[in-house]
Amino acid sequence: MAFDIGGTRFRVGLFDPEGRRLMILESETFREGGRAWMLEQLLQHSRALRQKSDAPVKACGVSFGGPVDYDRQRVTSLHAPGWEDFPLGQWVQETIGVPCRLDNDANAGVLGEYRFGAGQGTRTMVYVTISTGIGGGLIVDGKLIRGRDNLAGEIGHMPVSDSGVPCSCGARGCLETFCSGSAIALRGREWGHRRPEAVTRLVELSGGSVENITAKALIQAAAEGNTAARQILGEASRWLARGLMAVIRILNPEKIVLGGGVAQAGNLLLNPVSEALEAMASPSICHTTQVVLAELGANSPLYGAAAMALESA
Amino acid sequence: MAFDIGGTRFRVGLFDPEGRRLMILESETFREGGRAWMLEQLLQHSRALRQKSDAPVKACGVSFGGPVDYDRQRVTSLHAPGWEDFPLGQWVQETIGVPCRLDNDANAGVLGEYRFGAGQGTRTMVYVTISTGIGGGLIVDGKLIRGRDNLAGEIGHMPVSDSGVPCSCGARGCLETFCSGSAIALRGREWGHRRPEAVTRLVELSGGSVENITAKALIQAAAEGNTAARQILGEASRWLARGLMAVIRILNPEKIVLGGGVAQAGNLLLNPVSEALEAMASPSICHTTQVVLAELGANSPLYGAAAMALESA
Repeated sequence: MAFDIGGTRFRVGLFDPEGRRLMILESETFREGGRAWMLEQLLQHSRALRQKSDAPVKACGVSFGGPVDYDRQRVTSLHAPGWEDFPLGQWVQETIGVPCRLDNDANAGVLGEYRFGAGQGTRTMVYVTISTGIGGGLIVDGKLIRGRDNLAGEIGHMPVSDSGVPCSCGARGCLETFCSGSAIALRGREWGHRRPEAVTRLVELSGGSVENITAKALIQAAAEGNTAARQILGEASRWLARGLMAVIRILNPEKIVLGGGVAQAGNLLLNPVSEALEAMASPSICHTTQVVLAELGANSPLYGAAAMALESA
Repeated sequence: MAFDIGGTRFRVGLFDPEGRRLMILESETFREGGRAWMLEQLLQHSRALRQKSDAPVKACGVSFGGPVDYDRQRVTSLHAPGWEDFPLGQWVQETIGVPCRLDNDANAGVLGEYRFGAGQGTRTMVYVTISTGIGGGLIVDGKLIRGRDNLAGEIGHMPVSDSGVPCSCGARGCLETFCSGSAIALRGREWGHRRPEAVTRLVELSGGSVENITAKALIQAAAEGNTAARQILGEASRWLARGLMAVIRILNPEKIVLGGGVAQAGNLLLNPVSEALEAMASPSICHTTQVVLAELGANSPLYGAAAMALESA
């Protein structure tokens, strides 16, 4: 059984011993409900799944969309009220009554794509999740790399500029302030204020309100051909490409897999990213790292949680 | 027996089975002599070492200051005339009559520091060599990481800007165009032309000629307190810190070890680098990666070659 707890959606799934999904339940996260609400939902969904299946549950894996202390199997930071320092691994283990393993969504995502998605057959790969923020997970030589402080893969907080808006992390110039979903939405709103005539369709898609512009609406506007939306997405892609090129120069992995909400834009994101990578390539240092979209789409972390369950079974 | 072949100096050393050096011979590289000259020197130096020692030579390791195809044990690019696609590993093996292993100086450097220097006791570390260019070697979980195309650790060619002078690699905005030894020397010469009164001592140290300003002279001027030289070194350090922070965000290694010619500046380099890292740190993403100077100084690659010899013995 696999759980994926995210800030906007959560999922509970049943997988067979080969990692094939049997059933997945998915709902929106009610942020204001906090921890108590979420745990109740997990309980209900897991019961519903068990009732629909004769297969015994042997182990659980949990992906959490926020900082996790893997060694202590605890959620370590505020994601929604009440999550701080919560022993989520233990809670699932006691509630479901089987061994459980907990990790953050970037690590779960890379495990999912490595075992069941775009990373199959590689030994070294990086998963980059582009949603509200930007995170990443690393598999090197077949092993998940956590880093000295459990911070390996934090590519969203790579400094790429001396200026720009302050990052949520408190630093300035972080990659994610230029190309995360939040950054893209912010650019859309800036256009909405400065040049509303260029983004009428975008505002329309956002219920008529500039303040409600989201990355999702902007991607849809870009898909429909809106020039401003494409321009914003193109600029974000160039920044993202610079971050990916840093990953290529440092690790030179076989594949970089793009996941998370913004990657649902598909080729609208991948094409400008590939073009930007091409433009900054060196004619004499020829890498063959492939940059591809996540095969499991929004489900990479859920599949990763399944992989974790299979490892702990 | 260990060989370290660099663009400006080369070394031949004898090491005992525990990796302690018994003897090291060091000379300047005569670039114009090309491959033939260098091979003759290696032969003479290795003979000299063998004559002075009763210890039998059981294996050789070779560090080459340029691109190496490790799988084929060949030098793959021009370093000095005649090196292209030369089977240096095989040559040493046949000439010295013992097993030999060949790698580039960044990989040799990280091995040296990991086994015998500042990286001892770590499992994951990065060695960054700052000399004419900037290179790097990675040890992850106790293993040297080469990457898909043998390009892991090429942090000198991480794009950090849209502008700047063209890089030797053919791309633009590479890290090493801002903080390598060549970049530092170039800044010194620029000052020499634009504001000669600020760098009189630097020009003096360069034999009176602005065109002869080197990174080494600039470091010496900075050590003597020259303001302009310190400013140039400080700016280079800030760029270097940005590259190191990318390494920290992606890999979060236990240690980053700074080696190569420019790192011989010691605290004149390390202090501004540490300050710049401090300035760009995040208050909420607290890493404990240590940035330190190479303990083996200019000999990191030679010790790494010894480590390679010990592994192949």
